[in-house]
Amino acid sequence: MTHEAKTPAAVREGRGRGRRPADEVRADVLRAVGDLLLAEGIAELTFERVARVAGVSKTTLYKWWPSKGALALDGYFHAVEQTLAFPDTGDIRADLLSQLRAFARVLTETPGGRILAELIGQSQTDQELAAAYRALYSSQRRRLAGERLERAREAGQLRADVDVQVLVDQLWGAVYHRLLIPDEPVTDDFVTALVGNLLDGVTGRGPATC
Amino acid sequence: MTHEAKTPAAVREGRGRGRRPADEVRADVLRAVGDLLLAEGIAELTFERVARVAGVSKTTLYKWWPSKGALALDGYFHAVEQTLAFPDTGDIRADLLSQLRAFARVLTETPGGRILAELIGQSQTDQELAAAYRALYSSQRRRLAGERLERAREAGQLRADVDVQVLVDQLWGAVYHRLLIPDEPVTDDFVTALVGNLLDGVTGRGPATC
Repeated sequence: MTHEAKTPAAVREGRGRGRRPADEVRADVLRAVGDLLLAEGIAELTFERVARVAGVSKTTLYKWWPSKGALALDGYFHAVEQTLAFPDTGDIRADLLSQLRAFARVLTETPGGRILAELIGQSQTDQELAAAYRALYSSQRRRLAGERLERAREAGQLRADVDVQVLVDQLWGAVYHRLLIPDEPVTDDFVTALVGNLLDGVTGRGPATC
Repeated sequence: MTHEAKTPAAVREGRGRGRRPADEVRADVLRAVGDLLLAEGIAELTFERVARVAGVSKTTLYKWWPSKGALALDGYFHAVEQTLAFPDTGDIRADLLSQLRAFARVLTETPGGRILAELIGQSQTDQELAAAYRALYSSQRRRLAGERLERAREAGQLRADVDVQVLVDQLWGAVYHRLLIPDEPVTDDFVTALVGNLLDGVTGRGPATC
């Protein structure tokens, strides 16, 4: 799907002159933003361009997204949502490896890594962007990760006393650490080690059979 | 020691008119920078102020530190070096808990957390600052952590096949993750969980006896 489609909503076949449902307009906008971001990154993202591509007015955009950061975050979340969906095969090790590898690929092989790094970077001194980042992206991602980890805990695959939110920092947080301070690279071996270390522990005993 | 001492180097008793050794001047500058940073944070740090407090010329400062970021990073590294020193009691669990708690305190109870967050944030779009951050701070901290972890591995306390640099991301990296994206707080319980999870593993088996 080209992101340069120029069909204004009003002339779409069969709709006449009525307003489109807001949900549909929002979805179109988010899709346009996601496409633009993953193709080009954040620098070229403007309200004007998104309005044109999605076939909405800038007024509509400003109503729903108070800043470029909020628009980018919302679009980015939806753009990667399927790619970063948490598999549930019942095997928490395999599922974590699978999802973390997909995450590492988004960060290293698409503009996704640069986009997040810039947004996180700006958030350090922009309180509104920081709040939008947490509301529209990171808290949602934490919730989704936590849900998968909780299911594993309920199934007895993780210790009953584990706080799954700490695991989020030791898995995805570890990847973000290398994204933001790249002394060491984000690689497949790194992801494999993250999961193995955490599930099996790293003391002098052998690995668990999970 | 007050950081507003105004004794120029040239009139210190017994030194006459000769130049002070460069090492000593550098140490004075780094100490002045560290004191200023930990008292006030990074916003008020200027070459002019540091020059005045340390009793050196701005020319000297610019020769050694090409940017405010480099000066801040070098000063900050030295300011926290002792506080963040890695204990070696022979008990890797106790030593990691001790050092990570000291780290968490620096981040949450001193301006250190804000300083690092701002520098990391700016690094995302400032390549020179990013390079300085890695050269003067993060790669040094990684090296020091790696050395302590390697000793534990050589002593058989960590599995022989563990890549200690991955442990850095799963321990200190996890703390940085909460510093930079604060959906969840950096607390003592968090630190305890980080170390326990990694040493013992989190699968449905009981903890290791390390």
